[in-house]
Amino acid sequence: MKKYSELTKDELKNLKSELEKECEELKKLNLNLDMSRGKPCKEQLDLSMDLLSVLDKNSNLICEDGMDCRNYGGLTGIKEARELLATFMENKVENIIIYGNSSLNVMYTMIMQAYVFGVMGHTPWKDQGKIKFLCPVPGYDRHFAICEEFGIEMINVPMSESGPDMDMVEKLVSSDEKIKGIWCVPKYSNPDGYVYSDETVRKFARLKPKAADFRIFWDNAYTIHYLYDEKEKHDHIIEILGECEKVGNPDIVYKFASTSKICFPGSGLAVLATSDNNIRDIMSHLKYQTIGYDKVNQLRHVAYFKDLQGVKDHMKKHAQILRPKFEMVLDTFEKEFSGVDLISWTKPRGGYFISFYGMKGTAKDIVDRCKSLGVKLTDAGSSYPYHKDPDDSNIRIAPTYPSVSDLKTALKAFTVCAKLSTVEKLLAS
Amino acid sequence: MKKYSELTKDELKNLKSELEKECEELKKLNLNLDMSRGKPCKEQLDLSMDLLSVLDKNSNLICEDGMDCRNYGGLTGIKEARELLATFMENKVENIIIYGNSSLNVMYTMIMQAYVFGVMGHTPWKDQGKIKFLCPVPGYDRHFAICEEFGIEMINVPMSESGPDMDMVEKLVSSDEKIKGIWCVPKYSNPDGYVYSDETVRKFARLKPKAADFRIFWDNAYTIHYLYDEKEKHDHIIEILGECEKVGNPDIVYKFASTSKICFPGSGLAVLATSDNNIRDIMSHLKYQTIGYDKVNQLRHVAYFKDLQGVKDHMKKHAQILRPKFEMVLDTFEKEFSGVDLISWTKPRGGYFISFYGMKGTAKDIVDRCKSLGVKLTDAGSSYPYHKDPDDSNIRIAPTYPSVSDLKTALKAFTVCAKLSTVEKLLAS
Repeated sequence: MKKYSELTKDELKNLKSELEKECEELKKLNLNLDMSRGKPCKEQLDLSMDLLSVLDKNSNLICEDGMDCRNYGGLTGIKEARELLATFMENKVENIIIYGNSSLNVMYTMIMQAYVFGVMGHTPWKDQGKIKFLCPVPGYDRHFAICEEFGIEMINVPMSESGPDMDMVEKLVSSDEKIKGIWCVPKYSNPDGYVYSDETVRKFARLKPKAADFRIFWDNAYTIHYLYDEKEKHDHIIEILGECEKVGNPDIVYKFASTSKICFPGSGLAVLATSDNNIRDIMSHLKYQTIGYDKVNQLRHVAYFKDLQGVKDHMKKHAQILRPKFEMVLDTFEKEFSGVDLISWTKPRGGYFISFYGMKGTAKDIVDRCKSLGVKLTDAGSSYPYHKDPDDSNIRIAPTYPSVSDLKTALKAFTVCAKLSTVEKLLAS
Repeated sequence: MKKYSELTKDELKNLKSELEKECEELKKLNLNLDMSRGKPCKEQLDLSMDLLSVLDKNSNLICEDGMDCRNYGGLTGIKEARELLATFMENKVENIIIYGNSSLNVMYTMIMQAYVFGVMGHTPWKDQGKIKFLCPVPGYDRHFAICEEFGIEMINVPMSESGPDMDMVEKLVSSDEKIKGIWCVPKYSNPDGYVYSDETVRKFARLKPKAADFRIFWDNAYTIHYLYDEKEKHDHIIEILGECEKVGNPDIVYKFASTSKICFPGSGLAVLATSDNNIRDIMSHLKYQTIGYDKVNQLRHVAYFKDLQGVKDHMKKHAQILRPKFEMVLDTFEKEFSGVDLISWTKPRGGYFISFYGMKGTAKDIVDRCKSLGVKLTDAGSSYPYHKDPDDSNIRIAPTYPSVSDLKTALKAFTVCAKLSTVEKLLAS
């Protein structure tokens, strides 16, 4: 079978009318499907229902250290929860702060504190003129949105399977004092699902930024969000705080995670791990922001999981639900795009997304076509700063939320639209 | 019996040695009591234990409008909770946003948004030079701390039983564009327990600030926190949003409240009520800060209270616990300070505090003496901007947290110390 790039104009035209017919058929189905956001599905949420019963009116709400979880106080979180999340984060308890229900909110807070008050005694970012962040692309739209909200200029850094282009990162960070941070999703990156290699992490820990108030924003959102249960082969990244400390760079990183995609996304625990110096700096501002976060919910999570093994066992159940969905996407792409040599996609073994790379200049068109068929995708360009994908190629596929049968239908629509856009692009060139 | 101010030097000296003996006796008790913060006591927390059982693993977590409380989304809060809190706030549902567990955090966020991004399109406060807030004194230390953190200059405004000195407020606000806000605890003010009169609220609604981005920070923390169950006589304040709208000043106020002192202080719902324009402005920034707050906890509170009557019934149980404590303070003061004409105190019918006014120049000394006896009070000056009570007179008495017997002992120590400080001050004058 000939590849798309080898087809003649006439062959392309014939293909186009075939695909258009398929589109017409799909339109008749009046679909209303959503593949746009990385939300857990109902079956995943149902996994955690026992969380709601683990504390009840007869429970003891007093912590080991005597603190009453129901009352005010406990700004860094209760000891039991810090201990649990320290094992989860692979960090020391004293380097852990537990926040409210949203790690995005913690990242926002870190940017806000640096912007308004400055990092560890340095001039506030707001008073340093036009500051910049490095943004490995494609990346997480909500990270970039925070930068945009604060007027922080974003610089694209290309991603590869082993992580961001570290030559570029090293060069920029060491030469430009205005560069204050970089966004990283080191494990199962959003949206590619790539895992930073040991070499990448080691280079991050050894960065020599020109700005003393430069920080790595290490969003370890999918740290144990495996799709496969491989005893010896689990993807692993070097623990960044330890590595930074080892090479004398202890304060360079803020590491974030949450239980949002472990239990209930709106009602989980967000956590920050960072150096002693950073913790002190953060607390000196956090104490004005709130009296404390929800300690009853912290105790609830401890009572539910008990220990890290409890979290891991729970994640295997998520994997059982998500694996078939991811495999359906990959199998469908493999089958439908077998002759379409101008299209590629990533094959993650964890996380929440698959990255689709269409022929240059087709992503927006594909998303629009899908929309007209009743299939909602993440907007093309969303995974890039300012919503501008320079190649107009990347589409973030979020297979978790729809049911398997809805996903099948949505993928049918998606693959037809992707092929049609490609054919039209080839005809126009 | 002679009043303190009428005593001769010799009489004062005799009194001093008597009081010193009492101090010595108290010292032997090795007390360790805390009357410093407005925290509910254990018995109050126990009132709400059913809150933990009202949702369990068999509960339906789907809202009336189809939203799954367990998943992401719902930035303004779930409809059911907004409806409940709208009745509580006496506002329309569409003017309500439900946040996380801390109304202090909501107030902080409003200052932060105004500071960084500006209010409704106006120049950000950070770019307007030295801006100012009016601070009715004595007031809530954490309000003032937020201003201090953001470098906002604070101007004291005297309080009276009917609220802040409105002549002064009107004059300052209408003449100085740098004045951007005022902190108000309109009902059972912290720490005096005063209730703003109708005239005061009407004057607030009719303020004509020189600064278009001036906002009243209306912290209605104790809106239904009555100590007495008086069917026809409950203290009442005019609803400020409605009054502002009525007089063509709809956008001038942010109104805050929370369920913190209704159920569990660390695990409640914080709420903001404000105009349509303000809501739009706030949401345009809030959407970058978080994906949403804890909706499961919102549903939990709705399931527990059902309606406003449920909240009111619950508050009567708090009153039964708190009333004897407040009355013990007032009775003890009445008895112990009967001859001490240089001392006064407030007599609140709700809220969490009683204000003690010692002879000028004695508050710090009283607090230090109590501390040396093992009785912790709120630091003298805490209720004033920059911790500076110009008269060194006010002490915030927080009777809620200690048990009745601890409170009795703490009050014994307090009254002895207060008398001793007064006597020494008189001797030195």
